[in-house]
Amino acid sequence: MSGRLYAISTGPGASDLITVRAARILGKLDCLYAPAGRKGADSLALSIVRPWLSETTEVHTCHFPMSADNDAKAAVWDEVAGTLAREAQAGKQVGFITLGDAMLFSTWVWLLARLGRPDWLEIVPGVTSVLAIASAAALPLAMDQQSLAIVACNASEQHLRDTLERHDCVVMMKVYGRFPAIKALLQSCGVIDHAVMMAEATLPGERCWRDLSAVPDDEPLPYFSTILVNKQWDIRSESWNNS
Amino acid sequence: MSGRLYAISTGPGASDLITVRAARILGKLDCLYAPAGRKGADSLALSIVRPWLSETTEVHTCHFPMSADNDAKAAVWDEVAGTLAREAQAGKQVGFITLGDAMLFSTWVWLLARLGRPDWLEIVPGVTSVLAIASAAALPLAMDQQSLAIVACNASEQHLRDTLERHDCVVMMKVYGRFPAIKALLQSCGVIDHAVMMAEATLPGERCWRDLSAVPDDEPLPYFSTILVNKQWDIRSESWNNS
Repeated sequence: MSGRLYAISTGPGASDLITVRAARILGKLDCLYAPAGRKGADSLALSIVRPWLSETTEVHTCHFPMSADNDAKAAVWDEVAGTLAREAQAGKQVGFITLGDAMLFSTWVWLLARLGRPDWLEIVPGVTSVLAIASAAALPLAMDQQSLAIVACNASEQHLRDTLERHDCVVMMKVYGRFPAIKALLQSCGVIDHAVMMAEATLPGERCWRDLSAVPDDEPLPYFSTILVNKQWDIRSESWNNS
Repeated sequence: MSGRLYAISTGPGASDLITVRAARILGKLDCLYAPAGRKGADSLALSIVRPWLSETTEVHTCHFPMSADNDAKAAVWDEVAGTLAREAQAGKQVGFITLGDAMLFSTWVWLLARLGRPDWLEIVPGVTSVLAIASAAALPLAMDQQSLAIVACNASEQHLRDTLERHDCVVMMKVYGRFPAIKALLQSCGVIDHAVMMAEATLPGERCWRDLSAVPDDEPLPYFSTILVNKQWDIRSESWNNS
């Protein structure tokens, strides 16, 4: 068997929301590389895949610094990409795991930019937290002719406002630490009755807020909190508003 | 065991890109309802889940008309929603499958709007084609501070142009029948070297076009063709462009 590198998406949190393909690959790995260091996310990725790993798989963690020093970060990415390539080219079955989906807001893409698209690389897609939240909250992410935008709440207020005005559906990530400003923005854009907030979707600590007007500004929020807006869905009546 | 209705996302096409949770649920269903009638998509959803179904599961197809007659469509949705609710309330394990993810551009949400959020309903998220395409094309969907928009190519040219100008990353669905206009738009917005097109991702007929400038206007495209744009990814060198 020739060596291969698999970038494996773990899905949003629950171990059984990984794909069958990912679970099968995890069971035949010689070694697994798991990122470590980002707040909560990384130990979560490893805990998701534990039930699927073979007992003989060597698990390595790689620490990606959060520092603002781009050279320091680039040096670590170079080193990890080099290690993954060497292991695969030496004939091993190598995995690298990423929370959610590997191609959406994931550290993996910095490694991809260094590896290119060699024959021995396979990227396995997964369920992003955004999709898991929509299912758990029973709020359609987008339908029919609707347009959808995904933004992080650390974008400028002007960009967030433009996005809320121009799109029917908006996913607002990274709410943590910014809830009062985001709540005020949703009110000012007239969409707060079409928004839900969810934290830790599919995990034991999952929480959903369906009436954001009633959530106090100082509500303690978990790190993984996301807001979904669908202007044509009425949260209270759980129904589609075509007008 | 009390009755339950599961809205099950099948993922993009390959049977092993379904989640472990969905595969397990499919194996214990009393009956499965599968939409039928939309071009290609529905028979595909059923073929994805076949390997996971128990031999004793009754399979029913429900035909959703594509007509412009909204009353006719509403009558069918009312009827199917009523059937699903009756089966679950009669104590059965009932499944309804949707291609990709149930909450993103899926017929399922019209049924959800009729069912509400009863205790006996569970929605199982899945890998959307958008994520599968990003993995198969090795093109990051969005990263870091980038903003992402998903639009259908049957939107107005002005909306498509605005979206391409305002977002770093854009997914353009429903390219079929509109390729020459979309290609001209990508050229006029200066982003054609940051775009890939993919058809039938994860299926045997998967195809990827990485140099859209060279694709003739009359290229015969499969029905499921999607374009991804990431302005900071250079398709030719497979690398991130931070400038």
